[in-house]
Amino acid sequence: MCQDAMCRGGWAKYLLRSLATVFVVLAPLNTGASAQSSPDIKALIEDLVAANRILYRQGVVDGFGHVSARHPARPDRFLMSAAKAPGRVTAEDIMEFDLDGKAIDGRDRPTYSERFIHSEVYKARPDVNAVIHSHSPTVIPFSVTQVPMRAVHNTASFLAAGVPVFEMRKAAGITNNLVDDAARGKALAETLGDRPVALLRGHGNVVVGPDVRRTVSRAIYTEVNARMLLQAVTLGGPITYIDPEENKLIESGRGTRVTGHSVDRTWQMWLEEASRPVGEPAK
Amino acid sequence: MCQDAMCRGGWAKYLLRSLATVFVVLAPLNTGASAQSSPDIKALIEDLVAANRILYRQGVVDGFGHVSARHPARPDRFLMSAAKAPGRVTAEDIMEFDLDGKAIDGRDRPTYSERFIHSEVYKARPDVNAVIHSHSPTVIPFSVTQVPMRAVHNTASFLAAGVPVFEMRKAAGITNNLVDDAARGKALAETLGDRPVALLRGHGNVVVGPDVRRTVSRAIYTEVNARMLLQAVTLGGPITYIDPEENKLIESGRGTRVTGHSVDRTWQMWLEEASRPVGEPAK
Amino acid sequence: MCQDAMCRGGWAKYLLRSLATVFVVLAPLNTGASAQSSPDIKALIEDLVAANRILYRQGVVDGFGHVSARHPARPDRFLMSAAKAPGRVTAEDIMEFDLDGKAIDGRDRPTYSERFIHSEVYKARPDVNAVIHSHSPTVIPFSVTQVPMRAVHNTASFLAAGVPVFEMRKAAGITNNLVDDAARGKALAETLGDRPVALLRGHGNVVVGPDVRRTVSRAIYTEVNARMLLQAVTLGGPITYIDPEENKLIESGRGTRVTGHSVDRTWQMWLEEASRPVGEPAK
Amino acid sequence: MCQDAMCRGGWAKYLLRSLATVFVVLAPLNTGASAQSSPDIKALIEDLVAANRILYRQGVVDGFGHVSARHPARPDRFLMSAAKAPGRVTAEDIMEFDLDGKAIDGRDRPTYSERFIHSEVYKARPDVNAVIHSHSPTVIPFSVTQVPMRAVHNTASFLAAGVPVFEMRKAAGITNNLVDDAARGKALAETLGDRPVALLRGHGNVVVGPDVRRTVSRAIYTEVNARMLLQAVTLGGPITYIDPEENKLIESGRGTRVTGHSVDRTWQMWLEEASRPVGEPAK
Repeated sequence: MCQDAMCRGGWAKYLLRSLATVFVVLAPLNTGASAQSSPDIKALIEDLVAANRILYRQGVVDGFGHVSARHPARPDRFLMSAAKAPGRVTAEDIMEFDLDGKAIDGRDRPTYSERFIHSEVYKARPDVNAVIHSHSPTVIPFSVTQVPMRAVHNTASFLAAGVPVFEMRKAAGITNNLVDDAARGKALAETLGDRPVALLRGHGNVVVGPDVRRTVSRAIYTEVNARMLLQAVTLGGPITYIDPEENKLIESGRGTRVTGHSVDRTWQMWLEEASRPVGEPAK
Repeated sequence: MCQDAMCRGGWAKYLLRSLATVFVVLAPLNTGASAQSSPDIKALIEDLVAANRILYRQGVVDGFGHVSARHPARPDRFLMSAAKAPGRVTAEDIMEFDLDGKAIDGRDRPTYSERFIHSEVYKARPDVNAVIHSHSPTVIPFSVTQVPMRAVHNTASFLAAGVPVFEMRKAAGITNNLVDDAARGKALAETLGDRPVALLRGHGNVVVGPDVRRTVSRAIYTEVNARMLLQAVTLGGPITYIDPEENKLIESGRGTRVTGHSVDRTWQMWLEEASRPVGEPAK
Repeated sequence: MCQDAMCRGGWAKYLLRSLATVFVVLAPLNTGASAQSSPDIKALIEDLVAANRILYRQGVVDGFGHVSARHPARPDRFLMSAAKAPGRVTAEDIMEFDLDGKAIDGRDRPTYSERFIHSEVYKARPDVNAVIHSHSPTVIPFSVTQVPMRAVHNTASFLAAGVPVFEMRKAAGITNNLVDDAARGKALAETLGDRPVALLRGHGNVVVGPDVRRTVSRAIYTEVNARMLLQAVTLGGPITYIDPEENKLIESGRGTRVTGHSVDRTWQMWLEEASRPVGEPAK
Repeated sequence: MCQDAMCRGGWAKYLLRSLATVFVVLAPLNTGASAQSSPDIKALIEDLVAANRILYRQGVVDGFGHVSARHPARPDRFLMSAAKAPGRVTAEDIMEFDLDGKAIDGRDRPTYSERFIHSEVYKARPDVNAVIHSHSPTVIPFSVTQVPMRAVHNTASFLAAGVPVFEMRKAAGITNNLVDDAARGKALAETLGDRPVALLRGHGNVVVGPDVRRTVSRAIYTEVNARMLLQAVTLGGPITYIDPEENKLIESGRGTRVTGHSVDRTWQMWLEEASRPVGEPAK
């Protein structure tokens, strides 16, 4: 018989429940949002929740920042979390928005005031299916100086297309420096043009791509490249950048999802990291 | 029957108790200090203990530094931990002090020698309800050079009001460089003036605000901004700072506690981080 | 009787399995690859899997990078993981390759496209029994500037032999900047010459050595030395490097595996770190 | 009855044992070394083992570095671990040495080749009861440049006494740059003079003090100060250092062990950190 308090689960239950809370962070991925029941949507929501947690774990977002995905069946809508720290987002938090940034089924949930970054980029860029806004820490110094963000590392070769800086003062004068209406979102989308990344002066960046996983990879390696470029500037003298033609050849190898290669390789790793019981975002 | 040592809980009990110790770090938040039984005080002590642990976990304080809150019912008193490393503070450690820095019910507990930073700021600033003193690591280099700490990032826009540096030598000559009496505390409060942050040369900073949570947020983003500004200086050339007028508009959006926004969003995240079983302060 | 859900293992089983996954990361080391049953090979595969996890944990590799070992019985073959993030490699992933980079028993497993770094170095360097390719983060800034990587610290004295930079453009013009064929691998091996380390411009480095453990140590201390040299350059003025003659004397003390000394001391520590339940690579 | 595999402890036992290994790291502190049975010695060995683990956890030592304490009853002897990574040292590893660096009861245990740093400092400095040698990472850049290490922060005010740099080439010509004999140890002790810290060019530092805890604190804050000074140099312009007279007043407050203050406050925190189940040294 099992009469011992430990066996019956006194302390053990408490402990295991506490641990379980940490370990099941990705379990809610399976629940889906009530009104979104197709297999495609469920998989997309899983990726979107994972993206939130991965970006936090890898130090790209802190309590602020957000990531969205275009609705696979309705290109005039996108999915994004209710207003919440990305590292705490679960499937229940994922909401649907139209391209005016209006929540389809708000149910009084708070929404990110800067959702217009997403809605306006989706309007302007039919090729884009995922958008990330972050305060990526080493990216911001490039937004407040005259040193252009350029690609120095293969894994961030996509920056070779050029990284414009959005200056809110030019678009809207003295403001709260937040992209919290459609006009500002539109001006930002215009600055972004057809590129994968733009910086927001004194604020952060916007990163776009063809799907959630590749956009997450771009956001992470934009931060990695920023650290390397900062260090290269510190060393001084001429810097050899990734050539735009080199980038075309590098990017062509990233177009498909092949098991064990490119984005698939890193996504599985980041996913594991994000579900481990550790509280620290990577540096 | 359960005859196995493991089932009876030999090693397991030891282990589970060890783990439990780690997991229940925030449980003491519920105990309150004996003489302070009103619901308001209990909630404030919870926030104050959490603030200690959050500031440690986020790398703003190490073994030194302290955080206090003005007493909600008696504005001539404030609450602060007994002398202890902030990351180890529990509700039992919270003491009450008058504005001369005298403990109301000391019971031989050791007190921070620099409690006069708090008492004198509360005297000089009726608008202030929380005070943090830290050795915020990236802030200190700005205190020993002539480069002013200025706001480069939205989340630290409050620094646009200007960040004065307190030089103890001007106030009191050659000393131990500690604010360990009322006269030094008063001189520091004068240097601070009506601003949210002042640096102490070769020592750290003082950060003040309308409540505990917002002041914690200010202390954390002051450190974040210091890192970004240091990197911007490294990149070189003219730097675009957050304009004081931009700050006014940004700050106006932080005045209230709205679920999912601003300080509420980050506080919930920092609280989770501080209660996770990990020993590392974030960088 | 054990009727309780916890005792029967509902949540508990889930949790324990999750934890177990983390804890047994090094257990698969014992399984060996099916066709490789000699004790020597088993021990080598253990070291190789450990090397993958150690290099990840110490921040030398992220999702990319790979480590190989020359086959102890057949010097015209080498062992390396299938294409996978190094931090996730297990013994089952270890494959055998010939010196044309062809998998001996591929079984449709994906292979690293840059395996030619390994095959060509083994061809050119009979003294080399282990090869690491990484995107070692602080090493890359030295690859895109004119500042040579030189030894400033005892533990990286082997860099005193000189660290050449491989420029793909000189070897193959505008490419995807990947060493993904034999010709590029051969050109890289020529740049490396008889040295332990070469940088790949905008890409990473290659580190070689007489065995897995010593090569892992070299890769880790190359990154450590890069950080120190960057900081020395930041401080400015003349820098005192480790002299090549000093290096000869330092290296002579590393030639043997003595318990408690040199590589043995650090390997045991890195192994423990890599098997701890923590998700963070060290900085 | 408890017939379930989980209840009987299959996976659970494995897991719990693994966890236990992590949690009981400081348990061996209680075992003491066989021949050293006085209460004083036991307490000192506890501190010494804790010092090893703390210095690793705080990032002052990596796999290399060592810490010793003068024997409390026999000032011509000192205690130090056998050759082993500091983060893995237990009470069983602590050995006794005479001031010629000879092990009293070696039992074939490997010894640090640089134990002469310790023996010669104890000979030259009767006031010193603890010695630390480390490769403190941010300290080393100051050892290879002409920028003197100076105190910029209160907590490292002891550096205001001046920090000499030991150049092995001046003492012994071209060598392996290791202090592995008595003559080199003596030359280093002469460079150190009556100060608390000296740097070893391209190698690390030596830190001394009146007891283990205070010396650990000095080693940690020497690294912290090095980071701050490096950042101050990066900001540029004149730097205000801690004045030697300020240091005298600051140090006078550190002379005693008062609960909750100074070294006592940080030691308790570092001890907790070092016994937590986390693999990462702090940065």
